[in-house]
Amino acid sequence: MTQFSTVGLIGRLDNDRARYSVERLVRFLATRDVNTIIEEQTAALLGGGFSGPDIRVADMDELGSCCDLAIVVGGDGSLLSGARDLVQYDVPLLGVNRGRLGFLTDIVPDAIEQKMGEVLDGQYAVEKRFLLDMNVMRAGRPVSTGDALNDVVLHPGEFIRMLEFELYVDDYFVTSQRSDGMIVSTPTGSTAYALSGGGPIMHPKLDAIVLVPMNPHTLSSRPMVVAGDSIVKILVGEGNSAVPHVTCDGQTHDVVAGGDEIIISKKPQHLQLLHPLNHNFYERCRSKLGWGGHLLDKS
Amino acid sequence: MTQFSTVGLIGRLDNDRARYSVERLVRFLATRDVNTIIEEQTAALLGGGFSGPDIRVADMDELGSCCDLAIVVGGDGSLLSGARDLVQYDVPLLGVNRGRLGFLTDIVPDAIEQKMGEVLDGQYAVEKRFLLDMNVMRAGRPVSTGDALNDVVLHPGEFIRMLEFELYVDDYFVTSQRSDGMIVSTPTGSTAYALSGGGPIMHPKLDAIVLVPMNPHTLSSRPMVVAGDSIVKILVGEGNSAVPHVTCDGQTHDVVAGGDEIIISKKPQHLQLLHPLNHNFYERCRSKLGWGGHLLDKS
Amino acid sequence: MTQFSTVGLIGRLDNDRARYSVERLVRFLATRDVNTIIEEQTAALLGGGFSGPDIRVADMDELGSCCDLAIVVGGDGSLLSGARDLVQYDVPLLGVNRGRLGFLTDIVPDAIEQKMGEVLDGQYAVEKRFLLDMNVMRAGRPVSTGDALNDVVLHPGEFIRMLEFELYVDDYFVTSQRSDGMIVSTPTGSTAYALSGGGPIMHPKLDAIVLVPMNPHTLSSRPMVVAGDSIVKILVGEGNSAVPHVTCDGQTHDVVAGGDEIIISKKPQHLQLLHPLNHNFYERCRSKLGWGGHLLDKS
Amino acid sequence: MTQFSTVGLIGRLDNDRARYSVERLVRFLATRDVNTIIEEQTAALLGGGFSGPDIRVADMDELGSCCDLAIVVGGDGSLLSGARDLVQYDVPLLGVNRGRLGFLTDIVPDAIEQKMGEVLDGQYAVEKRFLLDMNVMRAGRPVSTGDALNDVVLHPGEFIRMLEFELYVDDYFVTSQRSDGMIVSTPTGSTAYALSGGGPIMHPKLDAIVLVPMNPHTLSSRPMVVAGDSIVKILVGEGNSAVPHVTCDGQTHDVVAGGDEIIISKKPQHLQLLHPLNHNFYERCRSKLGWGGHLLDKS
Repeated sequence: MTQFSTVGLIGRLDNDRARYSVERLVRFLATRDVNTIIEEQTAALLGGGFSGPDIRVADMDELGSCCDLAIVVGGDGSLLSGARDLVQYDVPLLGVNRGRLGFLTDIVPDAIEQKMGEVLDGQYAVEKRFLLDMNVMRAGRPVSTGDALNDVVLHPGEFIRMLEFELYVDDYFVTSQRSDGMIVSTPTGSTAYALSGGGPIMHPKLDAIVLVPMNPHTLSSRPMVVAGDSIVKILVGEGNSAVPHVTCDGQTHDVVAGGDEIIISKKPQHLQLLHPLNHNFYERCRSKLGWGGHLLDKS
Repeated sequence: MTQFSTVGLIGRLDNDRARYSVERLVRFLATRDVNTIIEEQTAALLGGGFSGPDIRVADMDELGSCCDLAIVVGGDGSLLSGARDLVQYDVPLLGVNRGRLGFLTDIVPDAIEQKMGEVLDGQYAVEKRFLLDMNVMRAGRPVSTGDALNDVVLHPGEFIRMLEFELYVDDYFVTSQRSDGMIVSTPTGSTAYALSGGGPIMHPKLDAIVLVPMNPHTLSSRPMVVAGDSIVKILVGEGNSAVPHVTCDGQTHDVVAGGDEIIISKKPQHLQLLHPLNHNFYERCRSKLGWGGHLLDKS
Repeated sequence: MTQFSTVGLIGRLDNDRARYSVERLVRFLATRDVNTIIEEQTAALLGGGFSGPDIRVADMDELGSCCDLAIVVGGDGSLLSGARDLVQYDVPLLGVNRGRLGFLTDIVPDAIEQKMGEVLDGQYAVEKRFLLDMNVMRAGRPVSTGDALNDVVLHPGEFIRMLEFELYVDDYFVTSQRSDGMIVSTPTGSTAYALSGGGPIMHPKLDAIVLVPMNPHTLSSRPMVVAGDSIVKILVGEGNSAVPHVTCDGQTHDVVAGGDEIIISKKPQHLQLLHPLNHNFYERCRSKLGWGGHLLDKS
Repeated sequence: MTQFSTVGLIGRLDNDRARYSVERLVRFLATRDVNTIIEEQTAALLGGGFSGPDIRVADMDELGSCCDLAIVVGGDGSLLSGARDLVQYDVPLLGVNRGRLGFLTDIVPDAIEQKMGEVLDGQYAVEKRFLLDMNVMRAGRPVSTGDALNDVVLHPGEFIRMLEFELYVDDYFVTSQRSDGMIVSTPTGSTAYALSGGGPIMHPKLDAIVLVPMNPHTLSSRPMVVAGDSIVKILVGEGNSAVPHVTCDGQTHDVVAGGDEIIISKKPQHLQLLHPLNHNFYERCRSKLGWGGHLLDKS
């Protein structure tokens, strides 16, 4: 008996290693008492060849509606995309990396059968991660919207032209800034682009948002951490020679204009991220960031 | 009628400006229907000369027990000291700066009567700030303890000798580090020493602790923000040639030894910090850190 | 008698303050025994109205060939452009700012007559600043070239896509890098974009080039300073999804491709930058960067 | 035949690995046509047991006067100490590491015979490294002096008390600063403590000095690189509650007082550092700092 009766499979990477992992998963799930739904683009990349009473192909909406677990095969980028697609369906996600471990995808291909077996047997931990809701308002009306598990980034679209904008938090004016833009990141995103920009590492369970200025003109600008329920507003300046863009998770892009307000806040829905029982955020930091192990190790 | 019936006065700075401000406060409070308690060291600095049915001198314990409001005259350092002394009595604090505004002391001398009058009339905001509880454990037994409103700092006591230690959060091993030490800061302290060390600015209402490595030997070390209810443990290495110290708010110092565990966590008691109604954290950042004002101001 | 017999005037900013400063200069120079050459685009912006035996309009080539002093009216950006245009003619440049002082343009409008008079009378200092020569090589052949007084920047053209490239100095392999690009800056440029990117401030007379990684993926990346006679080579990676660009002084842009080599080295020709006698680099740092004055000022 | 007729041996580390390396060197040198001088403290650590017509024990002065090559066995710290002791004798130094390679000591124990043989046969490169001359002046008179191959550091002696001081370069006032002190570093030292403090990496052949503020109170403070022939002066403030110290290479310490001037400039004598022919600064950076290798390595 398993806790999950219908499992979705998503794997958008068009390479042999990713296909191989998805196929191993299909075969393994066929040995367990679960229905398998393969996302239709994933199925197209696989080129068919799987059949059985418990396997079918469906689009992302149907997958989200029917599954009680979705497995994403790929890198952290694939999981970001999957998380945004499925957040509205409240289906938990599990990441299988096709190579070395990521921060979000923490099952390696060689351990697929063992780790998946444990998960189906109920041996897993669930972590809630929040996403950001991004809305661009122009003259009081919404003109574009997006979700982000990692970060919302305002940047000057093309070339290296400085942006100017005003920052507000919870309707309080914070400061104006001239810079290459700003990264608004969740704890999940704090080990991604925000870290390259000089932001702090934030533990995944922290309820906070970090604002990281990118190459700010003013030397006193610093990353700022605000409470997770804050409403962040960026008012795009009127005098920008650049064509500013707002980007979610580095994957979706919208053009914004002078006078636009970019409103960023926590989404009401959360991502449920499943981990094998031995998952450990700090171990990931040591492994991926090169942090030192125990002192005794080095003597 | 006022909300506060007994008001304590604390002012430890031995200079004319500070004495002048305390005397103005004594005179002003005498015109209102409140009892005034002058802390005994403060009274000694004033040199006497105040009397009346509603004025008396007492030590800090009695002041904490009897007052329903304590006013600290001085800089942010004076308020840090007052906060640690009074946190056990749950008496709200109000800071009067003797010069330019601080992050914590936000009444200027010239506005004493007006602002104090407003506060006594109930026109104020209360902000809860948490403090850190620091305990040094040696062979399982506590050997020293301290409180901090800003930060707990582990540092190599004298000279510039590198420390080595292991860091744990909630019993998870995080990393070992060779560095000049570590700053463990509250949001309140994030605009003080932690900021000089490269830490992020944290909004006062954020429930989080930041760990800032000082001049780390490893280039991949970064400030890390963890949830406010985390238990931070620093295990001091055995091989240090330095004599490590742990310092609370830059004001109290304890020697620690190899093998000692420094345990840092949120205190159950909070500081209630009173502000005039127009207080604004971001305005303080603009004023004290030199952040830019509205874009229109500069056109 | 003056040291300069023919003075060129360049002012490309189309606003009243800039035009007013240029006109003041024209009138002042008419009172001195010098020939004035107004650059043709500058003349067009002025709209005519100046005449006299010693005044004529010429294009930049003729101005460079005939003048023994060129005055640039505008901000630091105008002087960067003028320096690149005129470096081949070895004519010294003097910057007149139309507003507050810049790092390069250090005469304010109100002091035009006084300061210009002093300069014409021989009261000035000359500072040599070097420029960078940038060449893009594709399959061994040059495909584009540029000059920079501040910096050469490799960046991902549009959106926020990471670049990957290899860095060589004097034919030694240094490292590969995944980042938003790299700033290669002169000492002159070290107080401009390179400073926003985290680079050090370099004194103008230093014979050195700084390489500043932009938002590097690897946490151990740091700004690196190499000798001024170094040959810097950036080998653009083959796997970039971005369309990398190389930009000189933020003003000229070339598209580069995977496999291209960007070769950057000191130009043989130098800029001669004239300053009034009271010019002081560190005073500019204090004024423009907000550095503190003497300790006694603050007591 | 060899280029070096008298070779000195210095090894101050009291551990088996270091002794073993020194003994291997003694035996190897006995097989070559060179006189060997063992520094007297080194000989004491070895405990005797070596004899022969070409081996003798001498103090550092005699070693410096007689040798045309000195070999330092130990880590980078041992070489720093040896360099300061021997700089006046103009004898070239070669570093043998007792473990993994350092930035300065680039022969590993296992390769002692092979690499030393090559060096004695003339297969080596010589690199000139400059040292800093540090003088503390009190009321116009020198009160202490020191040499540094890596860095001169002003710091607050004990506890974490802020220092205040004024900085001058070539008699120009630069700025005042409130901070934990300042690191004044050579290119050699730029990969040591200055790097932990946020300074740039400087190529060893660069003729420059970097000034790195430590935890500065002012957010606009930045590392500053000045020409190698600059005279750096730090005027210690009068109002310091700390007992400021100045430290050379982390190894020698002098107390300074308010009003003292710390004068730092390049020493006229240079260190000649010998390297095996395959020595490569950037390879050391990749190996010790974790910089990435060629892009093809990772595909």
